[in-house]
Amino acid sequence: MKKDRIFTPGPTPVPLPVGLSQVRMVHHRSPEFGELLGRVLDGLKYVFQTDNEVLLFTSSGTGAMEGAVANCFSPGDRVAVFCGGKFGERLADISESFGLDVIRVSYEWGQSADPLTAEKLLEENRDLKGVMLTQSETSTGAVNDVEAFGRVVSGSDALFVVDAISGLGAVQFKTDDWNVDVAVSGSQKALMTPPGLAFAALSDKAWKAVERATLPSYYFCFKTARETQQKKPPQTPFTPAITLVQALDQAIEMMKREGLTQIFARHRLLAEATQAAVEALGLRFVAADRSRAFVTTSVWSPEGVDSGDLVRLMRNEYGVFIAGGQGKLKGKIFRLGHVGYFDGFDIVAQVSALEMALGRLGYRFEVGSGVAAAQGVLVDGQEVQ
Amino acid sequence: MKKDRIFTPGPTPVPLPVGLSQVRMVHHRSPEFGELLGRVLDGLKYVFQTDNEVLLFTSSGTGAMEGAVANCFSPGDRVAVFCGGKFGERLADISESFGLDVIRVSYEWGQSADPLTAEKLLEENRDLKGVMLTQSETSTGAVNDVEAFGRVVSGSDALFVVDAISGLGAVQFKTDDWNVDVAVSGSQKALMTPPGLAFAALSDKAWKAVERATLPSYYFCFKTARETQQKKPPQTPFTPAITLVQALDQAIEMMKREGLTQIFARHRLLAEATQAAVEALGLRFVAADRSRAFVTTSVWSPEGVDSGDLVRLMRNEYGVFIAGGQGKLKGKIFRLGHVGYFDGFDIVAQVSALEMALGRLGYRFEVGSGVAAAQGVLVDGQEVQ
Repeated sequence: MKKDRIFTPGPTPVPLPVGLSQVRMVHHRSPEFGELLGRVLDGLKYVFQTDNEVLLFTSSGTGAMEGAVANCFSPGDRVAVFCGGKFGERLADISESFGLDVIRVSYEWGQSADPLTAEKLLEENRDLKGVMLTQSETSTGAVNDVEAFGRVVSGSDALFVVDAISGLGAVQFKTDDWNVDVAVSGSQKALMTPPGLAFAALSDKAWKAVERATLPSYYFCFKTARETQQKKPPQTPFTPAITLVQALDQAIEMMKREGLTQIFARHRLLAEATQAAVEALGLRFVAADRSRAFVTTSVWSPEGVDSGDLVRLMRNEYGVFIAGGQGKLKGKIFRLGHVGYFDGFDIVAQVSALEMALGRLGYRFEVGSGVAAAQGVLVDGQEVQ
Repeated sequence: MKKDRIFTPGPTPVPLPVGLSQVRMVHHRSPEFGELLGRVLDGLKYVFQTDNEVLLFTSSGTGAMEGAVANCFSPGDRVAVFCGGKFGERLADISESFGLDVIRVSYEWGQSADPLTAEKLLEENRDLKGVMLTQSETSTGAVNDVEAFGRVVSGSDALFVVDAISGLGAVQFKTDDWNVDVAVSGSQKALMTPPGLAFAALSDKAWKAVERATLPSYYFCFKTARETQQKKPPQTPFTPAITLVQALDQAIEMMKREGLTQIFARHRLLAEATQAAVEALGLRFVAADRSRAFVTTSVWSPEGVDSGDLVRLMRNEYGVFIAGGQGKLKGKIFRLGHVGYFDGFDIVAQVSALEMALGRLGYRFEVGSGVAAAQGVLVDGQEVQ
């Protein structure tokens, strides 16, 4: 018997009550669905830690990122986009597609973005209309200091746009307190829901920018979304992915029961258990700073081992689905998962499969040392699990 | 006991195997999902009756309509949009949002669009870049003669763009044979799948236009979608709504087993049974031409009866969810459903609930006459059911 286990940083495992809630089909203009949608929109405010309306779209997270660009800016607007991985690059690509004047602030993949660079850029470019940052750069595992960036950008006229797709609900993210003007996320990471829903939370400063912006948008029009969501009962401008919204409702209820503080502590513990295993196995991390890197653990594949082979072996032989490297890290790194619906025993299983696959690929290490190291961290942190 | 029954023209009822297939979560880059996606994309070609690639997006149908506008045209391009209901108007709205020079060809709601008007427009506007038509205008029940329009537009340089969202899979629609350049549809009507997936099929003529078009697009970029879908195994540019694609796979398998010819015959029979009931109850149709109006049956509410009250009564008292009027028809019409996963007994139940609600609202008719009329048509057409 080979059981399938998903450890990818999105999609992530879906709890059974969440998965099952997709089976029933109701009409999106029924009073019942209106009530459910209202509950989901309230729940999103809780997860985003914002008092502002969180807009909901039927799309992948990238759709809401496009919405952020198209709704808040005009052609030729100068923006600085921090690029230290695939998703930072994507933010820059979207901005360029829509005719923005993009300053790509490239930093080494695996490093964290430096808030001082943003400060300097804002001083040198008084016309800067936006600073865009990826909170959790899923392609490297690095997690940026959004709070520090927020302090810097809030003192300027620029909008602070954050891709919080993989970080939201896994590590601390305070939309309002951290002065994030546009925070975007998606359903398929820490929110434990299948992919297909995306979200955007806007500050008052961002809504003022929306009024001035001239780029075209219809499907992702933020103003229309806000207007229809503020109806009583709330609606969406177009037929939403009803079954996914039902799933999200269940998932948010689970998150509320666990509570954000506990959720963040659990993610940290599972990340630290994974990190301990990786160190015990004598492997090196991709993310330089691990003090916030609790979303996904990226690891350099050992000398002579193509990470693609490792990923395939773990999947085909053991049913354990981890992610390989993306972009220029393809074949060089692998990424262990612990974002979303995971407990300590999942982590032990993942490390166990990793040890087995590494052994088969000829890497030498003390068998069981990874599993034991993870176990040690989990035992110490029992009250968190 | 009050059982819920959805008779709205989208979302439509989801067969249990389709609904259940959403429960399992797999990774979208797994070989298993690649195979499933390939099967779905092939199945869409069958449903669209096209040899061209059908693009799949995670969005409502409106998203793919926006994609058609943004990918095939440039700012200032002159297009003629036929508007005889809410969805024709939406097509025009999207086109205007993206800066096209829109000729709104308005015709009376409930009427069908006239291909001769298109012919005249193409003669008078040699620079016309597109003609846009809604196949099944869900807000009125009227179904346009797409084939006749295709003949007219194919002789010109203009692209023929068709919103086939509610018609595809319910009534005949031959993308290639009818010279449709861009056909757009969605998952939640005749395809018996929950909402959240949208499709676009493009002709060679349309792909050439895509090469010239200058409007910005990223999430709905047709070229990127085609490139990634043509990989082996096929992929989508961004994380797709995995569980909905799994559901669509099941639904298309059901459609293939029944076969398009039989599906169209069934929709016609159920529509004719509904029409017979409406006539027996002494009510009037909104759609002037009923020879193709087999997607939804729109009916004028009797004198003194607000259709909103009728819809609410049927829903709240009998659990039967039909649609009311949209836009300027709000309160004036109601719409009986027979698109998607329906058989004759569903239609009898719908007419039965309609009779009960009409009676309670004071409308006078011979009790049972609607049900009997529907039954008569169904008995005559037994071999089709």
